[in-house]
Amino acid sequence: MGELDLIRRIREKVGGPGRGTIIGLGDDAAAFEPAAAVELLTCDAFVEGVHFRRDLASLREIGAKCMVANVSDIAAMGGFPTRAAVSLCVPPGTAGAAIEELYDGLTDVAGRYGLEIVGGDVVSSREGLVISIALIGAAERERVVTRSGAVVGDVVVATGAFGGSEAGLAALLQKIPVDDAVEAATRRHLSPTPRLAEAQAILDVATPHAMIDVSDGLSSEVWHLSEESGVGITLHEERIPIAPSAIALAGRLGRDPLELALGSGEEFELLVTIPASEVVGTIDHVRAVTGTGVTSIGEVVDASNGCRLVGRGGGVVPLERTGYEHLSDDEG
Amino acid sequence: MGELDLIRRIREKVGGPGRGTIIGLGDDAAAFEPAAAVELLTCDAFVEGVHFRRDLASLREIGAKCMVANVSDIAAMGGFPTRAAVSLCVPPGTAGAAIEELYDGLTDVAGRYGLEIVGGDVVSSREGLVISIALIGAAERERVVTRSGAVVGDVVVATGAFGGSEAGLAALLQKIPVDDAVEAATRRHLSPTPRLAEAQAILDVATPHAMIDVSDGLSSEVWHLSEESGVGITLHEERIPIAPSAIALAGRLGRDPLELALGSGEEFELLVTIPASEVVGTIDHVRAVTGTGVTSIGEVVDASNGCRLVGRGGGVVPLERTGYEHLSDDEG
Repeated sequence: MGELDLIRRIREKVGGPGRGTIIGLGDDAAAFEPAAAVELLTCDAFVEGVHFRRDLASLREIGAKCMVANVSDIAAMGGFPTRAAVSLCVPPGTAGAAIEELYDGLTDVAGRYGLEIVGGDVVSSREGLVISIALIGAAERERVVTRSGAVVGDVVVATGAFGGSEAGLAALLQKIPVDDAVEAATRRHLSPTPRLAEAQAILDVATPHAMIDVSDGLSSEVWHLSEESGVGITLHEERIPIAPSAIALAGRLGRDPLELALGSGEEFELLVTIPASEVVGTIDHVRAVTGTGVTSIGEVVDASNGCRLVGRGGGVVPLERTGYEHLSDDEG
Repeated sequence: MGELDLIRRIREKVGGPGRGTIIGLGDDAAAFEPAAAVELLTCDAFVEGVHFRRDLASLREIGAKCMVANVSDIAAMGGFPTRAAVSLCVPPGTAGAAIEELYDGLTDVAGRYGLEIVGGDVVSSREGLVISIALIGAAERERVVTRSGAVVGDVVVATGAFGGSEAGLAALLQKIPVDDAVEAATRRHLSPTPRLAEAQAILDVATPHAMIDVSDGLSSEVWHLSEESGVGITLHEERIPIAPSAIALAGRLGRDPLELALGSGEEFELLVTIPASEVVGTIDHVRAVTGTGVTSIGEVVDASNGCRLVGRGGGVVPLERTGYEHLSDDEG
């Protein structure tokens, strides 16, 4: 199958052009009517052997997860995803069917969240698959939330629970025999959900000052948010929601549940700072509308305190930045 | 240097936020006011060892060329580039200074064409550098030109001249001693120019039916345009403008000048179909405004003829698709 045949089949799979789209896949660029209010743009690359392994996940799961990660970024800004362009770098000898399977995952997520894939590019890689997605979103101006607006006195809340994704990855790597906990954790790792509805539900009843999605790990994102906002953050160990699957698996994996929860990447939960007066209303509303739990896990404090963790016994320790950093300290 | 330090330095280099940009680099997504009319989106990935080699080009040249390729796509739609997001996948051990040098090239081009880099992401690759750029552009609705509108009877015109980029690459690979021709060809290969002003000048005086930029090679793009438009295209060998550097180097490279011109990728010239009555006015206007030559190289004919080349002796042969195809025929 040549390049043009493949592109034809991808176009059929993707469909469109949708509403407002003037030119979709297949030209030098896509053309469309811009969103009415504020536009958002995010761009992330996913590298085989770094972000995913083909022996642990199907190509459909890999494609879906890459798109979810981008949708999660748009959700964390307070917006909705609208249009995506996808660049695939595929190793020599990749079958057209493999690329189609990746697109099945991409279009699954696109369909679920009402976004249109308007651009696509398939080039050769030297080795391994690289998936790069640019995602455009739309937001109302007064609903855009950055990482940098946290204010001393805000309460730090988080959606969902943490640790499941890392536990799932570890269970896959260690080939732990499948039971309900393993299944829940691996599903969490392979097929995560972006918190789009939850972000909107929060915005409906609260005035979040800062919001970020947890892609690198809870502790790492707490640090990001604190540094971007120029504040400190104190977390309380006893309040951090740990996924039941992570608790159930921690012993078998030789890991500590709290360490799993703080370091687990690709959770795609939201970390949000809101005024204290809005916490109870937010928790109630998000649960009522989405079924997702929201938990108060800490508070925003003066920058001089840095990021800290209050233990169950009341002891205070610096919060270790245990999440994933792509560029380590020895590179410069 | 850690990830946050590097990102801080990239932010300084990129500057901004510019006019209409609400949130630039460093958040989950960029936020900005959308363009007034039609918005364009293109996304291309560039892979070390496939699209570029670090022993042949500086990182600054590599970064600049990647951005130029994207600007060229927006130019070929009839638009202007406005905002870009850049994803870098860098091999383990990449120095922060190397990433900064890449950004020097990216910001050189951004500055030259008035676009703002609003998003950036640096992740690890397993090996080799991958640069993925998503570029947004703006166009007036009636000035958007696709690949699919060519009409039988249109004249096919091209900006500039062909063969220089391929000749420059070959001269670099074969280490041909540097003279004026080698220097011109390698400059063409390493530091190409997108035909943004030329596209706009064409639109000012003509009604182009179809337009495409020559990234894969002239013959390959002639085929693309013909297939997307459902027409045939006849080129005339004697009219195809061949770069003087390609003519000068062909003998030393053991290549045929015409073959260089038809197969040379990354020329970033425009291939345009316009009504016959507009040809003379277009050629005159584009030269007057931009200094760039425009040449009539062929005509749009019925699809049943396919793409053909009329030789200097008057013989007609099928046009070989000699440009670069990323996915070859044995892949499906």
